[in-house]
Amino acid sequence: MEKYVYLFSEGNKDMRELLGGKGANLAEMTHMGLPVPKGFTITTEACQKYYDDNLQLSKNVETEIVEKITELENLTNKKFGDLNNPLLVSVRSGSRASMPGMMDTILNLGLTTEIAENLAKNPHNKRFIYDSYRRLIMMFADVVKGHSKDKFERYLDQYKLTHQKKIDLDLNAEDMVNITNDFKKIYQEVVQEKFPENPHTQILEAVKAVFKSWNNERAIYYRKLNNIPNDWGTAVNVQEMVYGNLGQNSGTGVAFTRNPATGEKKLYGEYLINAQGEDVVAGVRTPEPIEKLAKEMPEIYQQFEKIAQNLETHYRDMQDMEFTIENGKLYILQTRNGKRTSASAIKIAVDLVKEGLISKEEAILRINPDQLESLLHKNFTEESLKNGKIIGHGLAASPGAASGKIYFNASDVIKAAQNGEEAILVRLETSPEDIEGMNYAKGVLTIRGGMTSHAAVVARGMGRCCICGCNDLTLEEKTKTITNKEGITLKEGDIISLNGSTGNIYLGELESTEASISGDFQEFMNWVDEKRRLRIRANAETQKDIITARKLGAEGIGICRTEHMFFEPNRIFNFRKMIIAEDKEQRKEALNAILPYQKKDFEELLKEASPYPVVIRYLDPPLHEFLPKEDSEIEQLAKNLNITVQDLKIRINDLKELNPMMGHRGCRLAITYPEIAQMQTKALIEAAINVQKRGIEVKPEIMIPLVGDAEELKFVKNIVVETAEKIMQEQNIKIPLIIGTMIELPRAVLVADEIAQYAEFFSFGTNDLTQMTYGFSRDDSGKFLKSYYDQKIFAKDPFIELDEKGVGELLKIALAKGKKVRPNIEIGICGEHGGNPTSIRFCDKIGLDYVSCSPYRIPIARLAAAQATIINNKKL
Amino acid sequence: MEKYVYLFSEGNKDMRELLGGKGANLAEMTHMGLPVPKGFTITTEACQKYYDDNLQLSKNVETEIVEKITELENLTNKKFGDLNNPLLVSVRSGSRASMPGMMDTILNLGLTTEIAENLAKNPHNKRFIYDSYRRLIMMFADVVKGHSKDKFERYLDQYKLTHQKKIDLDLNAEDMVNITNDFKKIYQEVVQEKFPENPHTQILEAVKAVFKSWNNERAIYYRKLNNIPNDWGTAVNVQEMVYGNLGQNSGTGVAFTRNPATGEKKLYGEYLINAQGEDVVAGVRTPEPIEKLAKEMPEIYQQFEKIAQNLETHYRDMQDMEFTIENGKLYILQTRNGKRTSASAIKIAVDLVKEGLISKEEAILRINPDQLESLLHKNFTEESLKNGKIIGHGLAASPGAASGKIYFNASDVIKAAQNGEEAILVRLETSPEDIEGMNYAKGVLTIRGGMTSHAAVVARGMGRCCICGCNDLTLEEKTKTITNKEGITLKEGDIISLNGSTGNIYLGELESTEASISGDFQEFMNWVDEKRRLRIRANAETQKDIITARKLGAEGIGICRTEHMFFEPNRIFNFRKMIIAEDKEQRKEALNAILPYQKKDFEELLKEASPYPVVIRYLDPPLHEFLPKEDSEIEQLAKNLNITVQDLKIRINDLKELNPMMGHRGCRLAITYPEIAQMQTKALIEAAINVQKRGIEVKPEIMIPLVGDAEELKFVKNIVVETAEKIMQEQNIKIPLIIGTMIELPRAVLVADEIAQYAEFFSFGTNDLTQMTYGFSRDDSGKFLKSYYDQKIFAKDPFIELDEKGVGELLKIALAKGKKVRPNIEIGICGEHGGNPTSIRFCDKIGLDYVSCSPYRIPIARLAAAQATIINNKKL
Repeated sequence: MEKYVYLFSEGNKDMRELLGGKGANLAEMTHMGLPVPKGFTITTEACQKYYDDNLQLSKNVETEIVEKITELENLTNKKFGDLNNPLLVSVRSGSRASMPGMMDTILNLGLTTEIAENLAKNPHNKRFIYDSYRRLIMMFADVVKGHSKDKFERYLDQYKLTHQKKIDLDLNAEDMVNITNDFKKIYQEVVQEKFPENPHTQILEAVKAVFKSWNNERAIYYRKLNNIPNDWGTAVNVQEMVYGNLGQNSGTGVAFTRNPATGEKKLYGEYLINAQGEDVVAGVRTPEPIEKLAKEMPEIYQQFEKIAQNLETHYRDMQDMEFTIENGKLYILQTRNGKRTSASAIKIAVDLVKEGLISKEEAILRINPDQLESLLHKNFTEESLKNGKIIGHGLAASPGAASGKIYFNASDVIKAAQNGEEAILVRLETSPEDIEGMNYAKGVLTIRGGMTSHAAVVARGMGRCCICGCNDLTLEEKTKTITNKEGITLKEGDIISLNGSTGNIYLGELESTEASISGDFQEFMNWVDEKRRLRIRANAETQKDIITARKLGAEGIGICRTEHMFFEPNRIFNFRKMIIAEDKEQRKEALNAILPYQKKDFEELLKEASPYPVVIRYLDPPLHEFLPKEDSEIEQLAKNLNITVQDLKIRINDLKELNPMMGHRGCRLAITYPEIAQMQTKALIEAAINVQKRGIEVKPEIMIPLVGDAEELKFVKNIVVETAEKIMQEQNIKIPLIIGTMIELPRAVLVADEIAQYAEFFSFGTNDLTQMTYGFSRDDSGKFLKSYYDQKIFAKDPFIELDEKGVGELLKIALAKGKKVRPNIEIGICGEHGGNPTSIRFCDKIGLDYVSCSPYRIPIARLAAAQATIINNKKL
Repeated sequence: MEKYVYLFSEGNKDMRELLGGKGANLAEMTHMGLPVPKGFTITTEACQKYYDDNLQLSKNVETEIVEKITELENLTNKKFGDLNNPLLVSVRSGSRASMPGMMDTILNLGLTTEIAENLAKNPHNKRFIYDSYRRLIMMFADVVKGHSKDKFERYLDQYKLTHQKKIDLDLNAEDMVNITNDFKKIYQEVVQEKFPENPHTQILEAVKAVFKSWNNERAIYYRKLNNIPNDWGTAVNVQEMVYGNLGQNSGTGVAFTRNPATGEKKLYGEYLINAQGEDVVAGVRTPEPIEKLAKEMPEIYQQFEKIAQNLETHYRDMQDMEFTIENGKLYILQTRNGKRTSASAIKIAVDLVKEGLISKEEAILRINPDQLESLLHKNFTEESLKNGKIIGHGLAASPGAASGKIYFNASDVIKAAQNGEEAILVRLETSPEDIEGMNYAKGVLTIRGGMTSHAAVVARGMGRCCICGCNDLTLEEKTKTITNKEGITLKEGDIISLNGSTGNIYLGELESTEASISGDFQEFMNWVDEKRRLRIRANAETQKDIITARKLGAEGIGICRTEHMFFEPNRIFNFRKMIIAEDKEQRKEALNAILPYQKKDFEELLKEASPYPVVIRYLDPPLHEFLPKEDSEIEQLAKNLNITVQDLKIRINDLKELNPMMGHRGCRLAITYPEIAQMQTKALIEAAINVQKRGIEVKPEIMIPLVGDAEELKFVKNIVVETAEKIMQEQNIKIPLIIGTMIELPRAVLVADEIAQYAEFFSFGTNDLTQMTYGFSRDDSGKFLKSYYDQKIFAKDPFIELDEKGVGELLKIALAKGKKVRPNIEIGICGEHGGNPTSIRFCDKIGLDYVSCSPYRIPIARLAAAQATIINNKKL
């Protein structure tokens, strides 16, 4: 029979899939002999079963839970429902991947009216017991029964008002008794049943509620954001309660073994005396730095420091720990690999290698490639920082630089971002409901909360710049304003700049510069390059693109989309003239005017990319994309072309297509208008000659788009070769030229062997290939794909992560067919997927030679490629 | 060394690929001992080599030709250039497939001024010799040198005028001498060189000219029309001249062993005394029926009749022969399998089986499936024929019935047809330049020419209704009118009707009816059905469709495109309402209004198709296809919907897609709006219940379109099953229902194994699959595919004939994956290719279970399927 419940002493850290991260680590720490409150874990399989059984807890699971409660009673020498020595427990979620705050927690389970009354006989306990009990009642109504806490909180506010108590701490034991009694009434009123006084019932209901919270909206959103599968389910941990709020000899805190923002090797954290764990995380009270504990409770601090070191060595990674001190006794409630900023992640990984704790491969595998993105983004210039007007200062919770308009709630940020604005989310403190807004924001600013508050943790995870606990500013929610100590008031839409590395907040927008790779990052990237097999090229059309890309490690250009060179106003006219041309002569005339621009661009690209190759993709898009759409533009163009508006409109209409994505584009343009391919070849070869004459090595590669049949490539290749050879002969100079094709149509895959007879390289255009394979127009599919995610038909967007089953299968077929005919054929990928880490791993596995991606994705691709090599080699 | 030239005695009928049809048959007849003028054949390989060598005749080939000329001299006891006994030859093309009149011929080669002068010493020969010589000069200028005959013909007309000679026959020997001398001068003037007096030069030049004529425009068009590969090339036959124009003891004719229009077993043909072969074919003089020859030259007739019988038995097929009588001696110049009407083809095939000459399989393989089309088209009703006004009568050259507007040249017919008019081509006589026009015309009428004239032969080949030699009508080319004996004059654009089976021409449009399958045709189709493995279903949406389809042999409905049911004005309103719906409730309301129509349609289809299956394809097309486009329509709809025009326009605009073919359609509609699938299921199941209650067997099959992932099908199938079972339970009745999917996206192919877990059948939608595989929008690709044909990148349209290499490969993959998971899965095809004979053969080969096509293609598909079974079984 399947086992669904494990005592902490029965598990270990490698049982993460079954016990969740928290459960596995509680078990591991139990084995290590650390002071962990006793408990047990209900497995993720029980959760899956709960969903399979249509939201029912099966008899098996229930029986096992009850059995384990008995064992727990024995272990703790406490008893559920015992009036004098009752077992009180917490019920917490814990999935395979960390999802902080996403799911529900219930504390103080096991408390009943009878127990409270009995324990309250000791007046020392009375306030605490009823405080705990009233919290349980409210949490139970909220989490288990699904009724918002509002009514309870409004009642509490009202109570404090009528009893002239300012804050919760002002409430005395009698107040707590009154409140508890009234909470029970409110409970019955909203839930329409009595609060359950049976501890077993409380636990079983709580377990179900946590299972159910796996599918609440914010958890689903978080999983989507973090690519966590929906079918994993969560484990549930049932653990003896310990209390940090029993007085000045109690407390609670969180700490990292190293600094999560910088990576500095030094215990880093915060604590609060006489507080519950929730108080630290929620950022309601601003906690003390952990160093202070060394003075306040030196023994406890030393014990904790030792445990921390122990845990880091044991887990071979920086740990994020929660602890509670109950009446002078230290308990470790949780440990996990700590979230960290990208910079910190790199420093820690490099340091751990140097400390001999992990290997270079492990270091490489530990960095999530997407994390690097934040390292590659801009910082404010020294100049602008010097001259900037500082309006406040907070905790530097997540590094980076962000300027933008301020908005005071998540939905306004989302709206603004969707309108193309750069937005900064400003909140008193953030809560899980704000995550989507944080994702849309350029930066996050909170008035309350510490370095481990919700805002700080989430922002670091996202690589989003964040400043927390900025007491310098006063936030007025009603008027949507913030005011600083000098009396400067900013309202919604005003611009500020956040320096996440210093905690300084500036008025207005500061000038920023691009990041560079240096120090630990540089060292780490060197290791990455030692390990990776795939070459990384850049998608680049401009000199600026390729210069940036080279700085970030690009080995040449994987695709230069030549049509992108023609959107500039001074170029588009001749391009439009070319399109409108009625005959070959007119078209040639326009092409001749275009040639010098194209040639100049090619020269720059060849020079900057040298000695690496430059893949020039010949004209690809439907021509009508370049046509004017507005009447005024049409009038202007007609005038310039010296034709009537009427004639121009007819011509524009002629060029319209019902499905332009499958229309007159790609090599079809060169087949109908060979003079286009001739001009592009002339521009490229002449550019290459000019650059080579200056002693610079050039490697142009011509890529013919949208080929579906070998005859198409043969035809266009003939034009190219003829044109190129004529120029080279005339100038008596030889340019090394190779000619290949994109593989972006399903048919190209199926006849890749025939195509390889003419193609010297293949480059997978996975954007189009995905479109054609799914029959999804990239421009239109957004409308219905939302339903696909909602209905769980699709887990992810195939335009972002390569569909291995379908499109990936095509890649494998093309690869096999191509290599059969031309064993040394060079094969790469230049679709968006070339910058997606998961897709890069697939590209490595199937044996591509290179990936090409946008300049800022280059370091990410390098890392992903190194990880792929390590992982794929292990698999062999 | 390769052999490029074969004497007739060296070849045989099976060497068709090398020697061409004409050459192989001349060789065969030579072996049979028939009186064939001596000669040799230059192979198709020599022609291919000529093209490979850039339009050069290689030394090898030239040497061999010269050698064979010497052998021919020995065989004939004549000598090239001999003044007394010169060898004169014809040079004619002859490709693998018959291409009558498409390429060039040159006669009388070997004649020189010296020879002519010498032979003319016999006054009896003088006129004939110079007549031949002047023809040679003109033909040589035209065919070999590429200068139009115009100048020669204008001179001839002028000569006759000034010499008061009405027709050519009035010209005497002296005239011929004069004309010859002047022709030589004109030759020198237009060609800019002297007419070559060297017989060898004449032949070699002539051979090259014939090779070159393989790629003249009309030959290319003919090949495209008849699917003849461009790379075959033509052979060239060099043959001793025989003359039918030496006097009353000479003559020439053509004849078929059976009647090519009806199939009647009786020698059928025409001849002319004292004429060249060209005179019969060109239709300049109206020839005598072959029966008359029995009286005029009884011995020759008997000899010919015996040879004809002999040839038919030898070739086991009806023969089309050319003969010449030279001074009382019969020569056979050509035999080939005769072209025939569809009706005749069927009768001959059935008769030959009954005569024991061929097997049923052979009979089946002999009929080109596309030929059946003409048998399935309409005939005039008895009533309309009785009441119709006959304005003339001609030869019933090609059966069928056609009504349309008259046009007097090919280009006007093409223009009219492209404007959607039904056009009749009316000509004095047709020539190869008219072929394209004949193809566009509904019928062809010529004033001159016999049953074997160009018009008659070509029209029969095309299955086009044709009446020839209608002397009752006078045609005035300048005014574009025809006038009959009663003085009725019709001008361009007036309507006439042709009865190709009787030769009667009617004024105006006659009422017509559909054809039926009976008699020989029925018997033949029974044999077809005995042999075929594939089942044939129909594409049908209306009661009329399925009734027609059943009559033509359909075994059920392979696809009912439900959206086609909504184009009718009284239905489209609610359909549009459904599309415009802002929410589920509005949509449901509109769907409820649609339901009764759909249900009624389904009832009719299920009843008429019983006991065969009816495949219902759920709603597929992009919704905006159904939206109103004109402002007036939009206003009307807004009024009906009780919303503002502005609101409606916004909604219509929202529904617009950039690439609707890859947009919100197919199963994506059912996923976003499940209520559509619910309504369709409800309509179908309720319809099936109603029909089944009447004791009629129903077999509904639900087909979900545009599935690319198993989860999509799973989702929609769940909706269908839930809805269907609810109704069946409520009514306590069981309907046998199977649910499958279209395979029309490349991704569906790649995950066909997963899809087969849910799909009980697959139906290949090869229209969409071809679109997605090639990335060709069917609506837009016409624009550039023309260049593809011109540049010989594509030989045929992949939307008409299934692309076996690409799309076909996908079919094979899907088939293998589907059968692996569900071995008994039923697999068919419902794209346009399901009615294309070549594609049907492929479908049989890879093991599909059925094809579905439009009702009128059903017999064609049956025949193609039988042929496929025979051919594919042979291959095993």
